[in-house]
Amino acid sequence: MLKSCCLAFPRSLLTTTGKRHIQCQLHRYQKTSAAALANMEKFDLPKRLQGSTPSVWNEYIALAMQYKPLNLGQGFPDDAAPEYVTQSLVDIGKDENPLLHQYTRGYGHVRLVQALSKLYCGLVGRELNPLSDILITSGAYEALYSTIMGHVDVGDEVIIIEPFFDCYEPMVKMAGGVPRFIPLKVKKTEGPISSADWILDDAELEGLFNSKTKMIILNTPHNPIGKVFNRKELERIAELCRKWNVLCVSDEVYEWLVFDGAEHIRICTLPGMWERTITLGSAGKTFSVTGWKIGWAYGPAQLIRNLQMVHQNSVYTCPTPLQEGVARSFEKELERLGQPECYFLSLPRELKQKRDFMAKFLSDAGMRPTIPQGGYFMLADWSPVADKVDLSSEPDKQRDYKFTKWMTKNKGLQGIPPSAFYSEPNKHLGEDFVRYCFIKKQENLDKAAELLSQWK
Amino acid sequence: MLKSCCLAFPRSLLTTTGKRHIQCQLHRYQKTSAAALANMEKFDLPKRLQGSTPSVWNEYIALAMQYKPLNLGQGFPDDAAPEYVTQSLVDIGKDENPLLHQYTRGYGHVRLVQALSKLYCGLVGRELNPLSDILITSGAYEALYSTIMGHVDVGDEVIIIEPFFDCYEPMVKMAGGVPRFIPLKVKKTEGPISSADWILDDAELEGLFNSKTKMIILNTPHNPIGKVFNRKELERIAELCRKWNVLCVSDEVYEWLVFDGAEHIRICTLPGMWERTITLGSAGKTFSVTGWKIGWAYGPAQLIRNLQMVHQNSVYTCPTPLQEGVARSFEKELERLGQPECYFLSLPRELKQKRDFMAKFLSDAGMRPTIPQGGYFMLADWSPVADKVDLSSEPDKQRDYKFTKWMTKNKGLQGIPPSAFYSEPNKHLGEDFVRYCFIKKQENLDKAAELLSQWK
Repeated sequence: MLKSCCLAFPRSLLTTTGKRHIQCQLHRYQKTSAAALANMEKFDLPKRLQGSTPSVWNEYIALAMQYKPLNLGQGFPDDAAPEYVTQSLVDIGKDENPLLHQYTRGYGHVRLVQALSKLYCGLVGRELNPLSDILITSGAYEALYSTIMGHVDVGDEVIIIEPFFDCYEPMVKMAGGVPRFIPLKVKKTEGPISSADWILDDAELEGLFNSKTKMIILNTPHNPIGKVFNRKELERIAELCRKWNVLCVSDEVYEWLVFDGAEHIRICTLPGMWERTITLGSAGKTFSVTGWKIGWAYGPAQLIRNLQMVHQNSVYTCPTPLQEGVARSFEKELERLGQPECYFLSLPRELKQKRDFMAKFLSDAGMRPTIPQGGYFMLADWSPVADKVDLSSEPDKQRDYKFTKWMTKNKGLQGIPPSAFYSEPNKHLGEDFVRYCFIKKQENLDKAAELLSQWK
Repeated sequence: MLKSCCLAFPRSLLTTTGKRHIQCQLHRYQKTSAAALANMEKFDLPKRLQGSTPSVWNEYIALAMQYKPLNLGQGFPDDAAPEYVTQSLVDIGKDENPLLHQYTRGYGHVRLVQALSKLYCGLVGRELNPLSDILITSGAYEALYSTIMGHVDVGDEVIIIEPFFDCYEPMVKMAGGVPRFIPLKVKKTEGPISSADWILDDAELEGLFNSKTKMIILNTPHNPIGKVFNRKELERIAELCRKWNVLCVSDEVYEWLVFDGAEHIRICTLPGMWERTITLGSAGKTFSVTGWKIGWAYGPAQLIRNLQMVHQNSVYTCPTPLQEGVARSFEKELERLGQPECYFLSLPRELKQKRDFMAKFLSDAGMRPTIPQGGYFMLADWSPVADKVDLSSEPDKQRDYKFTKWMTKNKGLQGIPPSAFYSEPNKHLGEDFVRYCFIKKQENLDKAAELLSQWK
């Protein structure tokens, strides 16, 4: 069989290697007939997906590919990850144990869940059963998905704090849930703005909780604002969760990235919260390898069980070599936890410099940045420079989309429009802002500063 | 913040490395109170998941961990993958390009979709747009999930051929679909049995198609039977798909593993089938690295679009280093496609020897194997040796569960009970069988033969 198939390959194709674009000479694509296309209506999106649209990332990645700007948009480091992390891949590739390349345990590679159990045991002050209280997922992204699909039933209400990581909303809708939004708002009109100045209105928050509320999604340190929720704020959320018996999903992927002595508090450690919290973490954020796509959820076994079912039905298991690499990396850091050379301390130390550098060049350019207490994003209010841009050529509905596209095309600097992180009725709240990522090589931050300085 | 957290760690924990089990001395787990547990009813599984139970794999992996049998159960090679495949991980780990460790394109790493486009262009005789006609997924498992969740709406009927890879059923149910089952049955009572002797009843098949039918799931080469559907059988399925405008999902993860001149025919190449077929493939099966969890779906853009939405909402993107490694591996094989040293030819050549070896030792032990034309599993009828086992101590409902557990515990040889691959009403059809995997090191097959020979 193979032979005849292979003979059908044109000689030129057989001797062509990777990088060239495909120039298949075999059969050109036959156009689908009109009758066939009419039939295709049957294969439209199922109802659960009809609210979903291609995400902001598709559009802005394509934009970056076309205009090749200095890209401060998508959130990933452009510098090398710690040497021992990438070296673990080398070691695993060379390892004589062939099983490092075969399926591992579905709910998580044992060596990795053991390392995480050790780590979080110390951080949450509670023993974690590595086999039942932790689930390893395809990035924190799949942890979010498994949590939402595993807990939200049709008609359940889910409270989402705006701005939010943009997948929260379609995931909740895909589960048949009803998102209920509440925006963080700046309560300060003068002087420098900190992410701590973005706060929830307490009465508005309380008003969202009711007997239909199944879940609230918390994100601390927060993307894109950089807010690190303080103890008082978390205690208020916890109080409402206890009162209404609501599950708290705490997206803590930036847990190590906090600055200026801000304290990252895990809401699962507050009284009565362990049994109603699922906490999410990310190896991509922790070790600066977003492309490894290893994340996790932890919490009480009876809550994690639901996630296991979704994971078992959708992905089943995560890559063994990458889980092994993350496990080895954690073991290394567990040995030096709390010491100055620990990556969990050295990375935020380094990042703080970059944050301050970015805040300065954005301010110098006339924008008004919110100084983040955590994470690796900075929101900046660009309305003070609105008179220096001509947005008339950009057809988008939201002003921040127009601004970021104009900047990409005309000034060669790309950011992300924060209105993508708001619900439809609240998109206007994001329109004056742009999100920049500062976990970038200093030379790229220098270039960004230079671009903006020339513009001024 | 870090400092105080880290001080809370016991010294012993801080200096302990990976492999030891966790002995956290901090706080023992506080038992959840009765009141809290009562509250937990709210967090039961949503309706869509209430049919899902822990899969056969969880149970049998745990069994293997407890009894440490010679494990011919789960389907993965226990021998080294091709050297250039694992070497690609070494090269990527050493590569100076830091972006090999960061997010790549969500719908698939460009180098990989280009390689796949080149490969399948030749195999299906049609140009594939690498950016719209191919989606890279977390294993073929997620490709199945994205296909089913992306196309099956509440109430849609999905035809599933029994026995089936066990995730098909819960995935269809999770999407709100209605599985309609049809079993393959042996139509031969004497002489050696080939997987080709397992066939569908034509009237029964035709009777399943109706206006509610959205999809049929085909698996060729077939797990667990090893059947390679022939052209006449595929043409009949295609005819019914065209007549009823039904989507064919063709799970072809064992596409390269065919023996004795059996021809693997891609149903998407039959007339009128391209526009209604989604074909699934697997790097894990293709390159003997099941732990890498890289799979794909290909088909016309208008059908793949639905999968993209599910993928975007659930996993978003697959690991960059592994996609890069698979791309490099395909590029290597594309250069020598059809030549005897091509892995896609050398692996089935090697496997055929193992298949024949296993068939002989199972026959010698008194079982009656079905000789597979493809794949790496063998079904064997163990009823001829039923008088040599004492199943009274095994509490399971199905006889094949009893048999496989008894064999694991008493003879040290593990197989998988095929009734796990049947719907509830048809489980009896699998009870006389056991599934063994033969993509194992010769020394392990020798051990299996020895164990069975001693038993006799």
